[in-house]
Parts: sequence; structure tokens; C-alpha cells
Amino acid sequence: MSESHAIPGYAYGNVSQTTPLSLEELDLLKQTVLFSPEDERFLHLAGEVLGDQTEAILDVWYGYVGSHPHLLHYFSLQGQPDGHYLSAVRKRFGQWIIDTCTRPYDTAWLAYQQEIALRHHTTKKNLTDDARAEPIIHLRYILAFIVPLTLTIKDFLAAKGHNAETVAGMHAAWFKAVTLTAVLWSYPYVHTNEF
Amino acid sequence: MSESHAIPGYAYGNVSQTTPLSLEELDLLKQTVLFSPEDERFLHLAGEVLGDQTEAILDVWYGYVGSHPHLLHYFSLQGQPDGHYLSAVRKRFGQWIIDTCTRPYDTAWLAYQQEIALRHHTTKKNLTDDARAEPIIHLRYILAFIVPLTLTIKDFLAAKGHNAETVAGMHAAWFKAVTLTAVLWSYPYVHTNEF
Ligand code: HEM
Ligand code: HEM
Repeated sequence: MSESHAIPGYAYGNVSQTTPLSLEELDLLKQTVLFSPEDERFLHLAGEVLGDQTEAILDVWYGYVGSHPHLLHYFSLQGQPDGHYLSAVRKRFGQWIIDTCTRPYDTAWLAYQQEIALRHHTTKKNLTDDARAEPIIHLRYILAFIVPLTLTIKDFLAAKGHNAETVAGMHAAWFKAVTLTAVLWSYPYVHTNEF
Repeated sequence: MSESHAIPGYAYGNVSQTTPLSLEELDLLKQTVLFSPEDERFLHLAGEVLGDQTEAILDVWYGYVGSHPHLLHYFSLQGQPDGHYLSAVRKRFGQWIIDTCTRPYDTAWLAYQQEIALRHHTTKKNLTDDARAEPIIHLRYILAFIVPLTLTIKDFLAAKGHNAETVAGMHAAWFKAVTLTAVLWSYPYVHTNEF
């Protein structure tokens, strides 16, 4: 992971967030999204398939954010987008695609989920990149992103010639992983004992 | 909708909840989940396709809840499931499938989403059916349900002989609708101004 360490602000394995869930609770959550060992294998394959396509994927996602003022809003202050912020986050976002497919969902993974959650929340937003932008991303949109992040990945999963069944398997595994992630990221927003 | 009124506790159109979102904010959320007029048409078609299959769908979903103690938990008190509660909710759940496909997403729809949200939250859980059960459903599982409710519907959408493209269209529209719903239901759990 030598490249990863070159990404400013990327701190996987170097954060000591208290995680909202124990590994046992994570396991129950995985059961709830029907996440099986087969999904783990499909995710690893997805990591190989997506590995050299992250820039193209990010073009789609940044195009989507950039064309919706209510989303670009969160990279902006008083209507003025922070260009440095947009490009700094983009590098970490690319790394996240690979991490989501290839990292074991263990304590280090849980800790970095909590770190990213806090970076979307007032607790830590803007700090990593010294950004000039809105102080919080509202939870409704974090959860809503499950849809675009899931639907738009399909073509990229299909781009390397795998058969329809394998693509569908990778796609379902990705959907489960993104939902699991969004669930974990909701934690800082939720009343004590209601998560 | 004469049948609907026969479902105990079903109060669509008869609740006056203050809704967390205005129609303008709902429109932004719909844009975020890529919900278009085409999705609306696909949802209506899904309503026709699913209309006479709701019992079979509920068998699958109740089987899933019943086989996971951490989920059955929420229909139970001190480990004892409340059978009357399970069957009372089941009837409203069947109606919800149809409503999700066929109702306009207007103020009445928003108000009933808020009512159902409160019925999962401590605010109103157990009241409608005078149930003996846990006082709250934790938000993590409500959000996680986006996956099983989306993946398991596919076979039912395909059961009436529509071509693959049409089934995929209905499936994407359903996914967007379920996510939109889960987002709205998170409102009572979230800190003021962070939703
Ligand atoms: C499931 C939903 C989402 C995913 C998977 C996601 C993914 C990511 C990732 C991977 C990062 C970089 C994390 C790191 O620092 O290592 C990030 C940061 C960021 N995302 Fe998201 N994001 C989601 C929702 C949103 C939404 C709805 C917005 C609003 C436009 C948004 C805007 C941002 C911003 C502004 C940052 C920088 C936060 C900071 O100040 O550090 N994200 N996101
Ligand atoms: C997206 C996720 C979910 C959907 C779409 C959903 C759907 C529904 C519907 C349609 C109802 C009846 C609403 C009415 O009263 O008209 C209901 C009630 C209920 N659901 Fe859910 N549900 C979800 C998540 C969950 C989860 C995770 C559990 C936990 C096992 C759960 C357990 C219950 C219970 C116990 C009730 C009765 C609440 C009361 O006391 O009134 N639901 N749900």
C-alpha cells in the first residue's frame, strides 16, 4: 500500500477512533445485508476489475455532484466551491473504492469508517484539507448516495468481459458493501442508543 | 382503497404529522437517488406485477426476520415474540408494498412516512397494536433492510413474464423508492439540524 501513503489526509490504519460497533455487532449487520463469504470473493474480484478504472468512475461521480447545486454545496462556502478541497477528496475517494473491495472488514476497517463518518459530520469536516466549506453533510444525502454509487458502478463492473452472472454477483456484493458503509457513517448523526 | 381501511392501525391519509421535508426538499432527495418520471412509470407497473404476490413476498420477508434472532428481537419482549403483533404488522406491510408503488409522493405520503418512522422509533413503537415488545428498532437495521428488501423483490418482479430490460427498470425504481423511504424514516433518530 505504498501509494496509499502518498495520498494527503489518507489515514487508514493510523486512526484510533472508538468504533460504534464491536466485531460481533458488525457480524449481525453483515447478516442483515445478506453479506456472505461469496460476496467477499465477488468484492475482491470487483477490486481487480475496478482497479484501473477509478479515474473514470470518479469522473462520473464528480460529474453528478458538480451538476447538482444542492450537492456541490457541501464542497463550497457561500456558493463558492473550494477547488483544492474537491481534488484532495477525490484522491481519497479513489482509494476508498479499492479499500472497500479489498480490505478485510476488521477493527482497522471499522476505525477508518468512523474516521470518514466524522469527516462528513461537523466533528471533523473540512479539517483534513483545511477546506473553506459547509460545516456538515446532511445525513439524508449520505444515505441517498447508496443509489447512485450502486447503480453507476454496474457498467464498470461489466467492462472487463465477465459474464452476466459474475457481473450481477459483483454488483450485489458492491451494493451490500456500500450500504454497510453508509449505515456505519450514520453513527455520529444519531441519538445515543438509537443507532 | 376500501380494503385498506379494513386494516387495523393503517392510517394513510388520516395522520397529520409535521413532515421533516418540504416538497421542494423531497424533490432534491428524489434527484439525489436519480428518481425520474420514468421510475414513476416503472413503479406503477411494479404495483401491478406485485399486487397479487404480496403474501408470497411477505412469506420471504417474515422468513428472513424469523430466522434471525437479532431481528425477531424487535417483535419480542424478553425473548418472547408477540404473535398478534407480528400478524397485525404483516397486513400493513402488505399494503405498504402497494402504496410504495402506486401512491403519489405528495404531502399525504410524506406524512405517512413520518408516521411509520415514529412507529419504528420509541415515539410510537408498540402503540398501534398494543404490543409487548422492544421499545425501539435501532436505526442501523432499518437502513440495512434496504438490501434484503431490494434484492429479494427481483424474482417477484420477473414472475409475470416481462422482458429483462423492463424487470431491470422496475427493480431500479423499487430500489430508489425503498432507499428514499429508509432515508425519510431515519429522521426521528437524527440530531436536530443534521438530517
Ligand atoms: C455513501 C455515501 C458516500 C460515500 C461512500 C462517500 C465517500 C467519501 C470518501 C471515500 C471520502 C474521503 C474519505 C477520507 O478522507 O479518506 C469522502 C469525503 C467527502 N465527501 Fe463523501 N461520500 C458519501 C456521501 C457524500 C455526500 C452525500 C456528499 C455531499 C456532496 C459528500 C461529500 C464529501 C465531502 C465534502 C468530503 C470531504 C470531507 C472532509 O472534509 O474531510 N459525500 N466521501
Ligand atoms: C427499510 C426498512 C423497513 C421497511 C420498509 C419496513 C416496513 C414496515 C412497514 C410498512 C410497517 C407497518 C407500517 C404501518 O404501521 O402502517 C412496519 C412496522 C414495523 N416494522 Fe418495519 N420496516 C423496515 C425496517 C424494519 C426493521 C429493521 C425491523 C426490525 C426487525 C422492523 C420491524 C417492524 C416492527 C416491529 C413494526 C411495527 C411497529 C409498530 O409498533 O407500530 N422494520 N415496517
